[in-house]
Formats: sequence, C-alpha cells, structure tokens
Amino acid sequence: MRTALSQANQAFHCEEVPVGAVITHQGQIIAQAHNLCHTLKDATAHAEILAIRLALQHFGQPFLGNCDLYVTLEPCAHCAGAIALMRMRCIYFGAYDPKGGAVDHGARVFDHSLHKPQVIGGVLETESAALLKQFFQTRRYTQDPPLL
Amino acid sequence: MRTALSQANQAFHCEEVPVGAVITHQGQIIAQAHNLCHTLKDATAHAEILAIRLALQHFGQPFLGNCDLYVTLEPCAHCAGAIALMRMRCIYFGAYDPKGGAVDHGARVFDHSLHKPQVIGGVLETESAALLKQFFQTRRYTQDPPLL
Repeated sequence: MRTALSQANQAFHCEEVPVGAVITHQGQIIAQAHNLCHTLKDATAHAEILAIRLALQHFGQPFLGNCDLYVTLEPCAHCAGAIALMRMRCIYFGAYDPKGGAVDHGARVFDHSLHKPQVIGGVLETESAALLKQFFQTRRYTQDPPLL
Repeated sequence: MRTALSQANQAFHCEEVPVGAVITHQGQIIAQAHNLCHTLKDATAHAEILAIRLALQHFGQPFLGNCDLYVTLEPCAHCAGAIALMRMRCIYFGAYDPKGGAVDHGARVFDHSLHKPQVIGGVLETESAALLKQFFQTRRYTQDPPLL
C-alpha cells in the first residue's frame, strides 16, 4: 500500500485526483498506476483500471485470478465491476468513500457479483484520506462536464 | 438498436459472446463496437466499454454527456459504472440479464450513482436474447480462468 500511496502522490503532483493502485502476484508488484482522467481525457481512467490494463499486458491472459489489488480509495462501481470480472483474489483499499464508493457503500458491487474477492478496507486510511483532502482543499475542483 | 444487434451478430461470427453497442449524439452514430473479451484477452472488453473508448476519441473530451447508448444486453456493474462516470443521457438495452446485469438486477448501479441516466430496457429484447441463447447452445462455453 506504500507503493500505491506513492502513486497517489504522483497523481497529486500532476494535478490528478490523488488515487494510486498496485497489483501484486505471488508477493511481487506486477503493475502500478495512478488516476489519469484529465491527462487521458477519460473519466474512467481510474488508477485501478489503468493498473488492471498493465497487469493484463504483463500476463497476456483475460483474467487476473490469484492477483491482489491495493488502492488508496474505495473503488467505485466501474472499478469494483472490473475487479469482479478479473476474478482478483483480494482487495486492500485505503480511504472509505461514502459518496462514490461501491464496495462498502452505495451499490456494494461484491454483494451481487458472481466472483467475490476478499476485501480489507482502511489500510493506511489516514494517509490516503489526507492526500485527497489536501488536493480538494488546494484547488477549486469542478467537474462540470463539457456539453457536447 | 438494429445497428447494435448487427454488431452483436459480428461478435457471434468471431466466437465472442454476442453483445453489441452503439453510441449516438444528436441522432448520429458516433461509435459502435462488440464484445472482444477473447480476442483482446481482457475480460472487461465489453461492447459498451469499447464503444465508450471510441466515442471519447471522437470527441476528445473526458465525458459523454448528451450521448445515448444502445446495447443488446443489460449492462454489468463495470459497464453501468462507466456509463454513470461518462454522464450519458439515455441507455437503451435489449435482453435483461438477471445473473450478470447491474441495472434492473443485482447491484442496480444507477440507484446509487451520482449521475442517473434515463434507462429503457427490453428494446429488441427477443432478437437480442435469441442470439445469446443460440451462442451458448452451440458451444460448450467455459469461462474457467487460467490460474496464474
């Protein structure tokens, strides 16, 4: 989770919402990424999704069974859905997200998914949450979408 | 939805689960895709996700507000989460999916998401469902993940 937090710090410094993710297999880091929504102009470019894409490239397989995910914020429905589709083994997350989270809040995706990973929340919660709080305090962050 | 069904037929003929998706903006088709999980070796390569990526490239914007999605099967949590993040206007889907769907079943993602698109289910339901039934009847389709 320290590496995921380091990724979140990198996001902070490039003006992305500071969330970082790491995927491990047999205790080794095989992928790490941070939120890149603004850079990639893609509101789904969350840290978990980008880490999953890197891990898929690493293995050349459609699933990530026996892999674990570390992410500094409770996953949203999009990311929790991806984790279930990937059949990942265990998810460790940092800060809880009562507004956008979909693991311990909201849609509670794993309560309904066919594959149910083990979930451990609140890992390095204080540091993960503090970084997010600092980010949103230091800028007036608006997410009004451009009207097409 | 006829174009989405045509995409689903293309998926069928390349041995992918037959689901197709189309995204429109101001009545014009701007993206269309079908399921490519096996081809891309990515269990998240659903028709909706691939169509969203194409639409993002089309506009060069992080959101797809004022766009509508047509998909032949009720979206799963991963796809419904993406639709919410994209702030899409209206979702039309074909067959209902009591097992993997997350709109009218399971996690019911839009009941909890910040953005709630309009949803109309059961559009060309019979044709969409028949294609899926035919696909799963004609092959013994196993999804056992390779153990990494």
